[in-house]
Amino acid sequence: MVKTYTYAAQDPKAKLAPFVIERRDPGADDVQIDILYCGVCHSDLHTARNEWANTLYPSVPGHEIVGRVTAVGANVKNFKVGDLAGVGCMVDSCQQCASCNEGEEQYCENGFTGTYNGPVFGGENTYGGYSTQIVVKQQFVLHIGHPEKHLAAVAPLLCAGITTYSPLAHWKTGPGKKVGIVGLGGLGHMGVKIAAAMGAHVVLFTTSESKRADGLRLGAKEVVVSKNPEEMAQHASSFDFILNTVAAPHNLDPFLNLLKRDGTMTLVGAPEHPHPSPTVFNLIFKRRSIAGSLIGGIRETQEMLDFCAKHNIVSDIEQIDINYINDAYERMLKSDVKYRFVIDIASLKKEAEAA
Amino acid sequence: MVKTYTYAAQDPKAKLAPFVIERRDPGADDVQIDILYCGVCHSDLHTARNEWANTLYPSVPGHEIVGRVTAVGANVKNFKVGDLAGVGCMVDSCQQCASCNEGEEQYCENGFTGTYNGPVFGGENTYGGYSTQIVVKQQFVLHIGHPEKHLAAVAPLLCAGITTYSPLAHWKTGPGKKVGIVGLGGLGHMGVKIAAAMGAHVVLFTTSESKRADGLRLGAKEVVVSKNPEEMAQHASSFDFILNTVAAPHNLDPFLNLLKRDGTMTLVGAPEHPHPSPTVFNLIFKRRSIAGSLIGGIRETQEMLDFCAKHNIVSDIEQIDINYINDAYERMLKSDVKYRFVIDIASLKKEAEAA
Ligand SMILES: [Zn+2]
Ligand SMILES: [Zn+2]
Ligand SMILES: [Zn+2]
Ligand SMILES: [Zn+2]
Repeated sequence: MVKTYTYAAQDPKAKLAPFVIERRDPGADDVQIDILYCGVCHSDLHTARNEWANTLYPSVPGHEIVGRVTAVGANVKNFKVGDLAGVGCMVDSCQQCASCNEGEEQYCENGFTGTYNGPVFGGENTYGGYSTQIVVKQQFVLHIGHPEKHLAAVAPLLCAGITTYSPLAHWKTGPGKKVGIVGLGGLGHMGVKIAAAMGAHVVLFTTSESKRADGLRLGAKEVVVSKNPEEMAQHASSFDFILNTVAAPHNLDPFLNLLKRDGTMTLVGAPEHPHPSPTVFNLIFKRRSIAGSLIGGIRETQEMLDFCAKHNIVSDIEQIDINYINDAYERMLKSDVKYRFVIDIASLKKEAEAA
Repeated sequence: MVKTYTYAAQDPKAKLAPFVIERRDPGADDVQIDILYCGVCHSDLHTARNEWANTLYPSVPGHEIVGRVTAVGANVKNFKVGDLAGVGCMVDSCQQCASCNEGEEQYCENGFTGTYNGPVFGGENTYGGYSTQIVVKQQFVLHIGHPEKHLAAVAPLLCAGITTYSPLAHWKTGPGKKVGIVGLGGLGHMGVKIAAAMGAHVVLFTTSESKRADGLRLGAKEVVVSKNPEEMAQHASSFDFILNTVAAPHNLDPFLNLLKRDGTMTLVGAPEHPHPSPTVFNLIFKRRSIAGSLIGGIRETQEMLDFCAKHNIVSDIEQIDINYINDAYERMLKSDVKYRFVIDIASLKKEAEAA
């Protein structure tokens, strides 16, 4: 066992604070990774504060992990010491069900093991990336093809990137398609970049006039302030696909009305309180669909990382030291970040040395 | 112009009563049809009573029309006098938009012309099948391949049949697929028959224990009383597709939870008041979809009629005389019909002769 320095929440009300855990020594199928950066996802905050009422404590969040391989087990052929590596939202799944067999481990019928707060159907708690190192089964470790100098900004691809890439790919975003992205936050700004790189005509929907310039800079061809009915009306029944990244409860109808016949709007955020009930009439009269999508499979996550490396796509980040994490959470609640906090894990290692 | 005997509502509160209209003489592209039977759809009742707040009066309902061709225009090659013929929910569309070009006239981007209460974007009112004869553009007339003795029971295929056939075909119902039908009314009983004939494993969902035997007789392999949570739980995450025919507001979540990964539930009824808002979490965690579907295109309606003729599928009907129509409406409101009223238009012709 290896003593490992982390930041953890001890209960729903506690701030995150230093905490020492033990990680297993790498087994035959394991990859040990020295963590360099970890992105900060909204799920981290929800879990640390038990807002989904399922948190195991102590809770060490973090599932946007990048680092360098420091050891590999005897059976590991695909990684070697010194490689850059990434870990996303999952560290295990049953590897036997139909979903796992099809490379869709995120829909594992026996429940995947989350990188933190992991065991869905029993087992020990798992500890995430707000830590100096992690040991992960080789099947759940990703290769990073980006230049090393961009590594911090690669971290958010492991959750925000795949969560937007997967539905954009599944619903066949590409040249000739008109694609909407609703919301310009951690997920939305990745959605804009990725959909644009896929070749779609991307329209960003935001409630904030102030984000218009940023939307265009990130790759949107048009930015629509969704509070302006006239702006919205100009796009009636014109979208092939809309990716809705907004988890806050909101009226879905104005967006559904922008879909063409057979168009789909996919939600990637689950609201704490329900959205107003969508109008069925709007679905029927154009054979439209509302769908949901959850992160992406491991094979697809690698595909996304390779795609992003090829197209020079990284996240827009604000790099922070670990001791800023509680302040970062407060700012995230106000959407005061452009567009993702990423923890420099060197700051955690310094704390560990000083301790 | 041809004086034509009908039953019409003169205002939202009025009962349907005899009324004489004028139909055009058949033009070069028209087919004139002596109406033999007309099915009674819930839309007839909603329109007669202005429940969708868009009724043009006088209102002559009826869009499940079967009869015999009595005249054809000079350009009509596909029908001849004496042929059996059917007319469904549409009598015209723009014939120019993408949807029309793809044979999906029901989604015409300029609005199709309904068989009754027709002009969506201006034009004269149209009068439906509660009438002795009708003149329809040849592109909107269907061939009937069923034996003539079943003609009355063929009528409901023109709306209830195509409304269920189209989504079942679009979402690829067939052998190896597990398909749910929610509700056993005019639409649902057609859905069960058609999905079974397509080769699917059909499960009927009903709130009424008393419909269990009927569901099995109509072709369902299993019948689930949806009020029983234990029965529902046995089917968790197992359906490829669910066709929901219930327009009354109800909780969609128990049905969404029965869909497999990537499964779709399609709604064909628009509730007067919204359903409770579906839980987004249920969509996200299996990439499930909620969709809507509207009747079907003309080419597909012919395909449906041919399919039903081949598989000996007709509607289960209760045949009525025209002067029973107001009583029939009251019974429909209580779901007291197995499963579709069909008007014998001979009874209307007798009234016309006596008048
Ligand atoms: Zn995340
Ligand atoms: Zn699995
Ligand atoms: Zn109808
Ligand atoms: Zn059209």
